[in-house]
Amino acid sequence: MFLSQFTTPDDAKKIITDSLKTSAVEEIPLEKAYQRVIAQEVISTLNSPPFDRSAMDGYAILAEDSFSHSETNPFHLKVVDRIGAGEKSNLKLKSGEAIKIATGAPIPAGANAVVMEEYTHEEDDTLEVLTSVVPGENVSPAGEDFNKGDLVLKKGKLLGPAELAIIASAGFSKVKIFKKPKIAVLITGSELVMPKNILEGAEVINSNHFTIKSMVESCLAIPKMLHSIDSAELVEEIFEKLLDEYDALITTGGTAISKGDVVVDVAEKLGDVPIHGVSLRPGKPFGFAQIHGKPVFMLSGFPVAAMVQFDVFVRQALFKMQGLTFKPLLVQKKATRKIPSTLGRTDYIRAKIEGQMVRPLKIKGSGIIKSMVESDSYIIIPENLEGIEKGAECEVLPYHSLKA
Amino acid sequence: MFLSQFTTPDDAKKIITDSLKTSAVEEIPLEKAYQRVIAQEVISTLNSPPFDRSAMDGYAILAEDSFSHSETNPFHLKVVDRIGAGEKSNLKLKSGEAIKIATGAPIPAGANAVVMEEYTHEEDDTLEVLTSVVPGENVSPAGEDFNKGDLVLKKGKLLGPAELAIIASAGFSKVKIFKKPKIAVLITGSELVMPKNILEGAEVINSNHFTIKSMVESCLAIPKMLHSIDSAELVEEIFEKLLDEYDALITTGGTAISKGDVVVDVAEKLGDVPIHGVSLRPGKPFGFAQIHGKPVFMLSGFPVAAMVQFDVFVRQALFKMQGLTFKPLLVQKKATRKIPSTLGRTDYIRAKIEGQMVRPLKIKGSGIIKSMVESDSYIIIPENLEGIEKGAECEVLPYHSLKA
Repeated sequence: MFLSQFTTPDDAKKIITDSLKTSAVEEIPLEKAYQRVIAQEVISTLNSPPFDRSAMDGYAILAEDSFSHSETNPFHLKVVDRIGAGEKSNLKLKSGEAIKIATGAPIPAGANAVVMEEYTHEEDDTLEVLTSVVPGENVSPAGEDFNKGDLVLKKGKLLGPAELAIIASAGFSKVKIFKKPKIAVLITGSELVMPKNILEGAEVINSNHFTIKSMVESCLAIPKMLHSIDSAELVEEIFEKLLDEYDALITTGGTAISKGDVVVDVAEKLGDVPIHGVSLRPGKPFGFAQIHGKPVFMLSGFPVAAMVQFDVFVRQALFKMQGLTFKPLLVQKKATRKIPSTLGRTDYIRAKIEGQMVRPLKIKGSGIIKSMVESDSYIIIPENLEGIEKGAECEVLPYHSLKA
Repeated sequence: MFLSQFTTPDDAKKIITDSLKTSAVEEIPLEKAYQRVIAQEVISTLNSPPFDRSAMDGYAILAEDSFSHSETNPFHLKVVDRIGAGEKSNLKLKSGEAIKIATGAPIPAGANAVVMEEYTHEEDDTLEVLTSVVPGENVSPAGEDFNKGDLVLKKGKLLGPAELAIIASAGFSKVKIFKKPKIAVLITGSELVMPKNILEGAEVINSNHFTIKSMVESCLAIPKMLHSIDSAELVEEIFEKLLDEYDALITTGGTAISKGDVVVDVAEKLGDVPIHGVSLRPGKPFGFAQIHGKPVFMLSGFPVAAMVQFDVFVRQALFKMQGLTFKPLLVQKKATRKIPSTLGRTDYIRAKIEGQMVRPLKIKGSGIIKSMVESDSYIIIPENLEGIEKGAECEVLPYHSLKA
């Protein structure tokens, strides 16, 4: 088959994205919301800070009392109250008075500035002040961060430390989030066995079990792992069962393009297969089906091809299913050597970032797991380029930026 | 106090790093090892692939039989066996014979190449072959990825999808990893309350509870959250208890530099305080203590200052405690405007990446949480620069790259 008969990665992404449904919404304690995707807009119920507060340890005063004073021309005030963190003064401060105040405590009525402790000297409730302050100095005004009624967070954001802090400060102890999609992963291959020290006959270790499981987890989704031999009857039976219970299905193996192959044949029997074969290297034998309204991602059995297919097609889909538009950070680096490619095909080259350069690894097979361990990024060569010249800038996708 | 009296961030990092101990080692099922740090070298017990295998669906043949043949000059072979995935032929292939073979299946004895199914036509066990192949064509040789006895993974690697795959393929179902450090987090501040809609008196919402908890989690460590009012007696009592049970202690609040302050006073009473005050903005009032041989990180009470201090000093330490040398990816971007700074001080400016540019946010207080939500990165201005000119390249640390 020729490249032109395959779906381009961009077209494939669009077909997949258009078919996805977003997860249901649930409300959970904010305490458990780290790394979840918010399914509501957050409108603050509070001002933050809630009151004018002191930005320093010192004395609340009337700024006007200090005008024209300095270290060589100090002045004196009477200390009438002392407020620590968590306390509030009931007095209204008058000219000639000072109230000792801790960082974060509310500015007392009547005061309009705080003089830092360092510029004062207190003895027997009499305060010597060695500087002048302007109105508002060392005061964080109420609502400086945000006000009651402000939209402080939009729907669809991944909740990290700062987002959790702003939801808390807006007065919420619970938050609505999208449920994590439950993903069934069916690894096919009669030869596959779990890790052991001695292999018999044609046995091969099922490394896809570990890669695909952890990749699903890295997309904040919940994997359910299964294995099947290469039997169309068995695969069909498993498909029917899984598609009832799970939000999506990922398979590996049985996606050969030249002829009928177990997994794709079953998908064609049970539903629609809008994609089979993509102009991507590695990863050409990728399939996508819709069965009973659920997305089915059919990955290659070769470990590296399956990983690339996952990174290009599945990752964004699992994020989108939980309401998240996730864009990995691409960086520009210079290629350490010429990299050939073919027009009309997108290449994901395993590579290693070395300062401002990027070094493409020399690899043969798409089964070579070692190359994934030794690389830290993909060089992406788009379909409209015939390759990258030595020293030319190219687009690099660090593996690390693929995780949410 | 002057900047020169403070510890530089680099010196502080060295003091901290030198004082840390690495976690104990435990053995866990590989199934549970995603995002853990490996505490052993992995020497393969197997060849990978374990045998010469077919890279294609097709027919195993003797390459010499095909020499000089082509589409216009086909030749014929007798199909003597058929092997699917997971199967192995017991025959020894002779000249004039072919064995049907599935991708991944072992190459039969006597064969030395695979001809792809597309270039053949089979009828009644007679195979017409329309191409020629060279010895080794479409064969993945045994040990192509790695061999028995090879070091396939070094100690101290974070286990991602590829690392799990290589450990599995090397024959291991269990793996030795470093234990996750248990971190006690003590949030101090009499004014702090959990999120609610109506605040009374001087109450302020304890947003640090949520930020520091999730930041510890982002470092793959286990947080235990506590809160204390600003009482030296209580804080001392809690310190003694926590330092017995946990691997490290993080506090927020009570780190003022100009005068005695609750947390630092307690730390000085119980142990050594090699760092109090760093030439960093935001985040100057950072303290580090060693008490009963355990590290104590004393962060500011202001949310943003605490987050920056965590990112600069605590993050790398928590990684190192579990055996991981983690280097976040820095990127170079051009500043959208001039950014002033002060010689002798390191600045972490909240910023937003916009293509090849980076835009520093305009912010006043170090309590402004909204600025952390709106930014996606820090611009780092080192101590030997007086600022960054508009359009000049600067070093940018994406928040995303801080997570392991």
